[in-house]
Amino acid sequence: MAKVITKTARTDRAICEALGTLGVSTVHEAQGRTGLLASRLRPVQDGARIAGSALTCEVAPGDNWMIHVALEVAEPGDILVVTPTSPCEDGYFGDLLATSAKARGVLGLVIDAGVRDVADLRQMKFPVWAKAICAQGTVKETLANVQVPIVCAGTYIRPGDVIVADDDGICVVRHEEAEVVLGRARKRQVMEEQKRSLYEAGELSLDVNNMRPSLKDKGLIYE
Amino acid sequence: MAKVITKTARTDRAICEALGTLGVSTVHEAQGRTGLLASRLRPVQDGARIAGSALTCEVAPGDNWMIHVALEVAEPGDILVVTPTSPCEDGYFGDLLATSAKARGVLGLVIDAGVRDVADLRQMKFPVWAKAICAQGTVKETLANVQVPIVCAGTYIRPGDVIVADDDGICVVRHEEAEVVLGRARKRQVMEEQKRSLYEAGELSLDVNNMRPSLKDKGLIYE
Amino acid sequence: MAKVITKTARTDRAICEALGTLGVSTVHEAQGRTGLLASRLRPVQDGARIAGSALTCEVAPGDNWMIHVALEVAEPGDILVVTPTSPCEDGYFGDLLATSAKARGVLGLVIDAGVRDVADLRQMKFPVWAKAICAQGTVKETLANVQVPIVCAGTYIRPGDVIVADDDGICVVRHEEAEVVLGRARKRQVMEEQKRSLYEAGELSLDVNNMRPSLKDKGLIYE
Amino acid sequence: MAKVITKTARTDRAICEALGTLGVSTVHEAQGRTGLLASRLRPVQDGARIAGSALTCEVAPGDNWMIHVALEVAEPGDILVVTPTSPCEDGYFGDLLATSAKARGVLGLVIDAGVRDVADLRQMKFPVWAKAICAQGTVKETLANVQVPIVCAGTYIRPGDVIVADDDGICVVRHEEAEVVLGRARKRQVMEEQKRSLYEAGELSLDVNNMRPSLKDKGLIYE
Amino acid sequence: MAKVITKTARTDRAICEALGTLGVSTVHEAQGRTGLLASRLRPVQDGARIAGSALTCEVAPGDNWMIHVALEVAEPGDILVVTPTSPCEDGYFGDLLATSAKARGVLGLVIDAGVRDVADLRQMKFPVWAKAICAQGTVKETLANVQVPIVCAGTYIRPGDVIVADDDGICVVRHEEAEVVLGRARKRQVMEEQKRSLYEAGELSLDVNNMRPSLKDKGLIYE
Amino acid sequence: MAKVITKTARTDRAICEALGTLGVSTVHEAQGRTGLLASRLRPVQDGARIAGSALTCEVAPGDNWMIHVALEVAEPGDILVVTPTSPCEDGYFGDLLATSAKARGVLGLVIDAGVRDVADLRQMKFPVWAKAICAQGTVKETLANVQVPIVCAGTYIRPGDVIVADDDGICVVRHEEAEVVLGRARKRQVMEEQKRSLYEAGELSLDVNNMRPSLKDKGLIYE
Repeated sequence: MAKVITKTARTDRAICEALGTLGVSTVHEAQGRTGLLASRLRPVQDGARIAGSALTCEVAPGDNWMIHVALEVAEPGDILVVTPTSPCEDGYFGDLLATSAKARGVLGLVIDAGVRDVADLRQMKFPVWAKAICAQGTVKETLANVQVPIVCAGTYIRPGDVIVADDDGICVVRHEEAEVVLGRARKRQVMEEQKRSLYEAGELSLDVNNMRPSLKDKGLIYE
Repeated sequence: MAKVITKTARTDRAICEALGTLGVSTVHEAQGRTGLLASRLRPVQDGARIAGSALTCEVAPGDNWMIHVALEVAEPGDILVVTPTSPCEDGYFGDLLATSAKARGVLGLVIDAGVRDVADLRQMKFPVWAKAICAQGTVKETLANVQVPIVCAGTYIRPGDVIVADDDGICVVRHEEAEVVLGRARKRQVMEEQKRSLYEAGELSLDVNNMRPSLKDKGLIYE
Repeated sequence: MAKVITKTARTDRAICEALGTLGVSTVHEAQGRTGLLASRLRPVQDGARIAGSALTCEVAPGDNWMIHVALEVAEPGDILVVTPTSPCEDGYFGDLLATSAKARGVLGLVIDAGVRDVADLRQMKFPVWAKAICAQGTVKETLANVQVPIVCAGTYIRPGDVIVADDDGICVVRHEEAEVVLGRARKRQVMEEQKRSLYEAGELSLDVNNMRPSLKDKGLIYE
Repeated sequence: MAKVITKTARTDRAICEALGTLGVSTVHEAQGRTGLLASRLRPVQDGARIAGSALTCEVAPGDNWMIHVALEVAEPGDILVVTPTSPCEDGYFGDLLATSAKARGVLGLVIDAGVRDVADLRQMKFPVWAKAICAQGTVKETLANVQVPIVCAGTYIRPGDVIVADDDGICVVRHEEAEVVLGRARKRQVMEEQKRSLYEAGELSLDVNNMRPSLKDKGLIYE
Repeated sequence: MAKVITKTARTDRAICEALGTLGVSTVHEAQGRTGLLASRLRPVQDGARIAGSALTCEVAPGDNWMIHVALEVAEPGDILVVTPTSPCEDGYFGDLLATSAKARGVLGLVIDAGVRDVADLRQMKFPVWAKAICAQGTVKETLANVQVPIVCAGTYIRPGDVIVADDDGICVVRHEEAEVVLGRARKRQVMEEQKRSLYEAGELSLDVNNMRPSLKDKGLIYE
Repeated sequence: MAKVITKTARTDRAICEALGTLGVSTVHEAQGRTGLLASRLRPVQDGARIAGSALTCEVAPGDNWMIHVALEVAEPGDILVVTPTSPCEDGYFGDLLATSAKARGVLGLVIDAGVRDVADLRQMKFPVWAKAICAQGTVKETLANVQVPIVCAGTYIRPGDVIVADDDGICVVRHEEAEVVLGRARKRQVMEEQKRSLYEAGELSLDVNNMRPSLKDKGLIYE
C-alpha cells in the first residue's frame, strides 16, 4: 500500500528564501504562534538558516530505504523531511546520502530520528536538524510513503509546505499561506527593529508595550 | 497575590567577580558540594563565565510577562534567574528581552525553561543557561512573583544570592556566605594548582592524596 | 570483593590507530552493525577522533575513587571507559584527573556519567564522551572493579577491546577481531568512496545499488 | 483567531462500538499499522475499552479554558481529545470537568497533558488516557481552537474521526474509512482466533505462518 | 558538617488530618496553586491519602545511611521526606526500613529517588511516593543533614511543614499557614460540591462560571 | 551471520524456584549488589514473582521475527529475554505469542522494548516485564541471534543464566553461581527476619546495626 506521489506543488523559491531570512521565531509569531516542530529536533551545526519546500518521507524504524526513494523525486530547493512510523534514533542519514541530496539540489534535512557522519555533514555544509546523533546503521527492507502528508515531530506537514529552519528549530508554513505569512513576518520584523532601538536606549518594555495598566488591573503589588 | 519586592540586597560586585573567575566546580566544592542547579540547564554558548546577584522571577507556563516586570527592578551586575510555576520549555526569552536586559546592566540569564533567537544571543554576547532552545512564543496574561525566594532547577535561590555560571553549569552561593566561600575557594584553587603540577610530572593521585592505606583497609585486591 | 586486574592484553596500537582513522560509523558497519554504545553518550568537544585499548573501570554512584585507582594501571594508548554501578550524572572527572590521565598516556575518556571542568578539558585537548556535563562533586568511599568486563552505555566491553570514538559516538571492537574488522572497514571505505563519486555526479542510489527490482517486488506504487 | 466549529460530522455509533470491542491493537493492524498515538499516553485506569467520535480541543500551556468551551459542543458518544499548543503536564482535567463531560454523554478523555483527581475519575468510571497525573491547576486566560484538525501525541486527528482506546493505548480511524477498517479488523480477529487455537495446541508460529523458507533464504544458521 | 536538628516543631495533627481528607488538588488550589512536588514522584500504591509533618532527610547518591539516622528523631504523625544530594534512582528504602518507620509512628514516605520491596510495602499498607521502583541496594558511608530545610522534587520543604499526599501527588503546606489554608480549602470544597451538583444536572461550566462574556471579549468565534 | 544456538545448558529448576521465592532485592544483595536490569523495565502486572533460565533473543528495531524463532528452542522453565539491537518501544509481543510461549512452558517475558494486548496478558497470567506498553505492530524481515550472550537493559545475560523477576524488577544470576547465591540469599533472608522482629518491637536500626560509632567518627552533629 506504500506509494510515492510524484507530482506535487512546490512553494515559490523567492518566498521561501524571504521566509528563511526572517527566521523561525519571527515566522512562527507572524502566523499566530503555530507550526513549530518539537524542540527535540536540534541543529547538527551552528548558524545554518534555510527555507524550502517540504519533500516528505516516511521510514520504518531502523530502515532508511525510503530516503533513497525520496531523493529521486527531489527538486532543487526542497528540504527533505523524514519521520519514522514509530520512534527510532538510529542513524538514517550520513555523508553518502547527503552527497546525493546535495547533488539533487536538496537544501537540507529535517528528521525526527538520528543521523551520523556528522563531522562530514558539517564540513560539507549540508544542514541537518535531527533528534539524535547515532552511528547505528539501518536496513532496506520495508516500504513507506513518500510525498504524502505526515506528522513530523508533532506537526502536520504536507508536501510543498514551506520548511523554515535555523538555530531556534523548525517551523512549517502552509503552501497556500506562505505569501501572507511573509507579509506579516516582515511587518513584525520592522516592529521588532523599532523596539530594539528603544530597548538599547534603556527604555523598558513595560512602557514601550504599555503593560502597566493591565498589570495593575490584575493586581500586581509592588512592595 | 503576586508581588514584586523592589528593595533587595545585592552581593558586593568584587566578591561576585572573584567567584566568577574561580568557576562553578571550584566554588561548589568550596562550599561543601552544595548549591548546584540541575544539569538539565545548559549554556547556550561556549566559554562564558559570569557571576552576579540573583534577580529572581517566577513565570506562568507559556507566559513571559513577569520577565518584563523583572527588568524594571534590575540593577547592573544582576543575573536574571527565571523559574516557571510548572515545567515548560517554551521560548520565554529572545533577542529583544536580551537587548533590554543588557541595557539595564544585567549580566546574563539562567532559566529553567526555553529561550529563542539563540543565534542573536550568541552574537550579542549575552550569556544564557537554559533547559531548552525552543522558538515557541509566550503570552502575557498571568502574574507571578518577582524578587522572592524561588526554587530554580532544584535549588533554593533568594534575591541577592550569588549566581556563578560557566560551561559546567550554575551554582548559587548564599549572600551572607559569599566572602567566606570565596576565601575557601581560593585556597582550594591553590591546592589544585599544586596537584596539577604533580600530576603533570606523572605522579599518581593515589600517592599525592595518600589513598593507598584506605584502599587496603576496604579490601581492594590486586590480581 | 572488588579487584584490580593488573595484567591485561592491549590491542596493537597501529591497528587501533587505523580503526580510529576510519571512524565509528564505518567500523560499526564493517563488523555487522554491532558494538555501538548508546547515543546518550555525547562528545564534550567537536572534531575529536581517537581509538585505543579499553581500560575498564566501575564506579559507585557519586564516587570516583576507582578512577584514581585505574590510572595507576593505565598504559599509553589506553582509553579509560567508566561505568557507574547504578545510573548517576555526577561530575566524576575534571581537569585534575585529565592532567593525570594525559601524563600516563591515556588518549581519552568514555563515561556513562557526568564530567566537569569542560572548558579546561577542551583547552587541554583531552577528548571526552559523557552522558552529562555536571559540576557535582563525588566522594571516595566505595570500592569497585578495575579491568574486568563491564557493560557501558548498553554494550559489553572487556579490557583491551578497541574503543573507537568520534563525533558520531563510540564503538567497541573485540580485541581478537580487530584486525579482521580493520580489513573489512577498509574495503567498505573504498566502496563508499566510489559511491560518493557517483552521487556527486548526480547518479541515484536507487540505480547505484540496484534497488528498483526489490522496490517493485515489495509493491511500491508511483502515482 | 481562535474558533469553535459547531457543526461537525460524527461516526456512526454502532461502528464505533464495534471497533471498540475489537480493541486498539487489532484495529491498528487492520488499517495497515497506522493511526496510533504515542505510547506516552497511558490509561489512568485498568481495563477500560471505549470508542467514539473525536471532539478535538486545543489548549494553551497551563490553561484549560477551552475544555470548558468544548463541552458545550459535545454530543453523546464523543471522546474528548485535548492537545496543548506546547508541551505541558499540568492537571487540565479533574472530577468536576469529568462530571460535566459525563452528563453531556462524553465517553472518555484522551489528553497529551496531565489530569488530576484520579481517585475520583476511577471511582466515577470516567476513563482517561493521559501523559501525566499532576495536581497542578490551570488558568482560564487564553483562547484556542475547538473541533479543528489537530495533532495529538504525534497523530493527526480530525473532528469525528473514531478514537479507539484501551489498555494498549489509543488509535484513530478516519471517519470515512471506519466501516472498511471494521470489516478488516473482524477478519483479522477471526484469523487470530484460529492461530490462538493452534498455538494453544503447541504448534509453532514458524509452522503456522510458514516462516521457515524465508528464514532459510535470509541465511539463518542453527548451531 | 552534617547535622541532625533534634528539636523541631510539628504541625497539629488534627489540622494535618483535615488537610489530608481534603486531598492534594484541593489544598494546592486553596493556597494559590503553590506547593506541589514534581509529578515524577508517583504513588507506589493506589488509594492512599495521608497528611503529616515533614521529617526531612538528605541522602548521598546510592547511600541510605541518613534514613536510619532520621528514624530516631521521628515522631508519630511524621511523614519522612527524603531527597538525594544529586539525582539517583537506587532503592533507598524497603520493607525493613518501612517496618521500623511504622513502629515509630511514621505515616509514610516521600522520596525523590527509588524504593524496593514494593510488594511488601503494599501489603504492609505503608504508603510511599517515589521517583522509581528499583531493587538497587545502597551503602552506608556518607553523612548528610536531617531535619534541615530541603528541596525535594523541586519544592522547598522545612521540617514540620505539612505534607499532603494522595493519588494525585504531593503538596506541602507551610507550618504557619496550615490553619488558614485548611479554612480556604474547606470553602473551596463546599463550592466544588455545589458545582458538581449543577454539572450532574447538565448545566455547563460556561454558564455556572459566567465565562461567556470574557470568551467574547477575547474574540472567540463560533462557526 | 545470524544464528540460533540450539543446545545450551539450563539452570536446575529447583534452584531457580528457590531464588524466585526469595525475590529480586534479596538475591541482588546476596550476590554483592550486582546483576540488576535497568529500572526502565517494569512489570505489566502486579504481584508476579518468577525465576527461570534465560532464553536470550535479539530483535531488530520494529521487527519481532526472532521471537518466533526463539520459541522453537524454548524449554519448560525458560524465561524469554528479548533485547532490540537499537532502542525501540514497538509492541513486539502480544496475546498470540504469549499463548504459544505458555504452551511451550515458558514462564514469562523480559523485554527492553514494548508489548501489547496487556489486558489479555494479565488475564492469561503470563507475566511480562517491559520498557513500554505500545500497540505498534512489527514486521518480520530481519534476522538476529537467538541463545547468544546479550546485553538487556544494561546487563550482560547468557543463555541459561537465572532470571529472577518480581514487582521490584529483574535480576540475573550467573548459571555457575546460582547455588552459591541461593545459599547466601537464604542466610540474608534469615538475618532480615531477625531484624524485622526487632524493628517491629521498636528498636532502632542505629542500634541493631551498631551504626552510632561510625556516625560519630564521620563527625555527625546533633543539635
